[in-house]
Amino acid sequence: MKIRIVDLLKSDIYGIDVYVRGWVRTHRQSKNISFIALNDGSTVHNLQIVIEHVKFEKKMLKTITTGSSIGIKGKFIRSAGGKQQVEVIAGDIEVYGIADPQEYPLQKKEHSLEYLREIAHLRLRTNTFGAIFRMRHNMAFAIHRYFNERGFFYFNTPIITTSDSEGAGELFEIKTELKDDFFGSPANLTVSGQLEGELGALALGAIYTFSPTFRAENSNTFRHLSEFWMIEPEVAFNDINDNMDLAEDFLKYLIRYALENCESDLAFLNDNVDNGLMDKLHFVANNEFMRLPYSKAIEILQESGHQFDYPVKPGIDLCAEHERHLVEEYFRRPVIVTDYPKEIKAFYMKQNEDGKTVRAMDVLFPKIGEIIGGSEREADYTKLLQRMKELNMNTEKLWWYLESRKFGTVPHSGFGLGFERLMLFITGMTNIRDVISFPRTPRNANF
Amino acid sequence: MKIRIVDLLKSDIYGIDVYVRGWVRTHRQSKNISFIALNDGSTVHNLQIVIEHVKFEKKMLKTITTGSSIGIKGKFIRSAGGKQQVEVIAGDIEVYGIADPQEYPLQKKEHSLEYLREIAHLRLRTNTFGAIFRMRHNMAFAIHRYFNERGFFYFNTPIITTSDSEGAGELFEIKTELKDDFFGSPANLTVSGQLEGELGALALGAIYTFSPTFRAENSNTFRHLSEFWMIEPEVAFNDINDNMDLAEDFLKYLIRYALENCESDLAFLNDNVDNGLMDKLHFVANNEFMRLPYSKAIEILQESGHQFDYPVKPGIDLCAEHERHLVEEYFRRPVIVTDYPKEIKAFYMKQNEDGKTVRAMDVLFPKIGEIIGGSEREADYTKLLQRMKELNMNTEKLWWYLESRKFGTVPHSGFGLGFERLMLFITGMTNIRDVISFPRTPRNANF
Repeated sequence: MKIRIVDLLKSDIYGIDVYVRGWVRTHRQSKNISFIALNDGSTVHNLQIVIEHVKFEKKMLKTITTGSSIGIKGKFIRSAGGKQQVEVIAGDIEVYGIADPQEYPLQKKEHSLEYLREIAHLRLRTNTFGAIFRMRHNMAFAIHRYFNERGFFYFNTPIITTSDSEGAGELFEIKTELKDDFFGSPANLTVSGQLEGELGALALGAIYTFSPTFRAENSNTFRHLSEFWMIEPEVAFNDINDNMDLAEDFLKYLIRYALENCESDLAFLNDNVDNGLMDKLHFVANNEFMRLPYSKAIEILQESGHQFDYPVKPGIDLCAEHERHLVEEYFRRPVIVTDYPKEIKAFYMKQNEDGKTVRAMDVLFPKIGEIIGGSEREADYTKLLQRMKELNMNTEKLWWYLESRKFGTVPHSGFGLGFERLMLFITGMTNIRDVISFPRTPRNANF
Repeated sequence: MKIRIVDLLKSDIYGIDVYVRGWVRTHRQSKNISFIALNDGSTVHNLQIVIEHVKFEKKMLKTITTGSSIGIKGKFIRSAGGKQQVEVIAGDIEVYGIADPQEYPLQKKEHSLEYLREIAHLRLRTNTFGAIFRMRHNMAFAIHRYFNERGFFYFNTPIITTSDSEGAGELFEIKTELKDDFFGSPANLTVSGQLEGELGALALGAIYTFSPTFRAENSNTFRHLSEFWMIEPEVAFNDINDNMDLAEDFLKYLIRYALENCESDLAFLNDNVDNGLMDKLHFVANNEFMRLPYSKAIEILQESGHQFDYPVKPGIDLCAEHERHLVEEYFRRPVIVTDYPKEIKAFYMKQNEDGKTVRAMDVLFPKIGEIIGGSEREADYTKLLQRMKELNMNTEKLWWYLESRKFGTVPHSGFGLGFERLMLFITGMTNIRDVISFPRTPRNANF
């Protein structure tokens, strides 16, 4: 019976014949017998294979080194001793591919994360990156399940666009060999699917995107990528409070999903990457998020007595150090800051009656800082047009966006969750390049 | 109680107070009473709202025209007469947004699909496009559920790449305002996540991508987009037969999922778009796919006596007309053609022992032609390198891909499913621009 190691390790039907295939993590030899730790990528745990030397050719056994790929037919039994509970006594061995110990980079010794980034095609075969990318799958699936269960429709907004003008960042332009305006006008890679997502919500009621987005900024930090994935729900008839409820419920659902579905990977990461990981996850899952307006947040920061690198005064955009102070020092729980000054937020946010602030909301997490940014949207055609003109935006290009406020406009709200920011939080990793398979950053688009 | 119309229409608890919000499809007035067909995007069915004129201001009622957005608090009751089973007697009405009948493009009359493409920001509010995009969500969710249940990991391969060299099509290049090689070498938009996906499978066992892909070809057909979504599973230790089994099982699962979960949208599309739709779906779900080698397919086509626009002879790539003849005329069921001549297939496909053919497989569907293309991959380092040299490929750029065959190589297979091709099949639509929200084609990247 062909079986994945994750399933076999859960089984308690001993004595049956099994067929497992995977990559050799270690091969320990003693006089008449040797032990292979076999991994097939389905779990962080290895399966122990017992090889009685007398049964096999010596020459073949010699090729079974770390990194080689083999198939084993054998008997699944309870293990007599050692750390592991179960093992397979090899009856038949097939070697698919060798891995020359002189050349294979992933030997037993520990490698730095920096070095592993240079061999991103192989780092997926390590325990750490196996755990990260299994969890990445589980978080993606949890996201789809969450929205599907709640009647949201997955909505694919375009990647190539001629009308990204929200000013969220520098743009990558699209060219072809033959001509520069393949699309009839200059085109670039999207910085957000929100504007098109709103059109979806204003027809289907509630939508979400889950899509790559791009920034051409020349910034080399632990938190920035040139290409990253974003989840952007948008809901007709939701106001800013519904939006906050959704964001909090969504994040807690994802964390609980991880706790329930990624036990062994989380345990590995907690032991090897961040000893406080499990505590942090439970903490966020079990505590109400603190909600407060920007003006109150500024007050708290000013009165904190803390020396910030960027001094705090009303009107400033909050930096990571300010956000983390609120979350980690002052409130000691996730925080949602609302009602920011309109000058530091995007044109499409609903204007408050004070004429100064907008119904923005940023969700701030420990270590990460901003993990979600969102708002109630300006639903009033006249106010939206006015604001776009104040900002000297090209209103003609966004005729379709404006029309969404002209025909059957409704209050609506949404937010964006950076998937890799979530993955940093949920894995305990600290560099965003380590939670995406093949990171794109300035001067690096290898693999 | 706030409730979505899809949920309310399933309810049989009459007499309760409900709160529904949505867009007016029609407003029929009679002397003392009027009837609104309200749609909130959650279903193709409208909810009937009954308004007794005496209860409300005349001026307000006049603003409730097609396309306007309203909220209704009222009593949910069994309908006394008419087509509908249930209705809501309005107790309280809020008008969120009007839609001037002189300006709102979606009046009662039927619009052509061509015209609706020009107002893609509003076409989502029609019955047809509502049905299509709810089904698109359901198919996307079914894809994730299928793979999640079977132990595949969702794997995000990069969009921006410096090493797309499989020759699958013309490339879009990436530039920035400041400099042309932001990434240190020329970069373009990916045409396929497969090569990186293989790295995932050779570590995690089984992965799938679900991601946008790009073609810069200047082709304006019913079947081509410049930007489209692709699903690409890749499985370590799968051979070509496992790959065919997976493709067939996967497609049948998706069709059955649609039949079970999209009843009302499918019924609408069957009635209004393609009267043979349901039959076609049942037919594919219930029949075994015919499997045959390319050489046999050529023989059948040559002996068919049919006059093709492109004459059939050994060595040609099959065109849609050939594929459709095999599926619709000869076998009358989906067909999987395997073992194509190596000259017309990609470098990475496993070479057969005859030295002439490769272990390719194309799945052919009625109307659509090729819906899936895949292969067992060449796992032998020497053969792969040799083939790349024959094709004058840059082997240095793909060093990481070659290394996957050097260290623990294993047999593995995968395929690509064009998501919009699937959507054409499952909705009965005929133009691929109508199954993606904002299509990108030569000279068009609006919205």
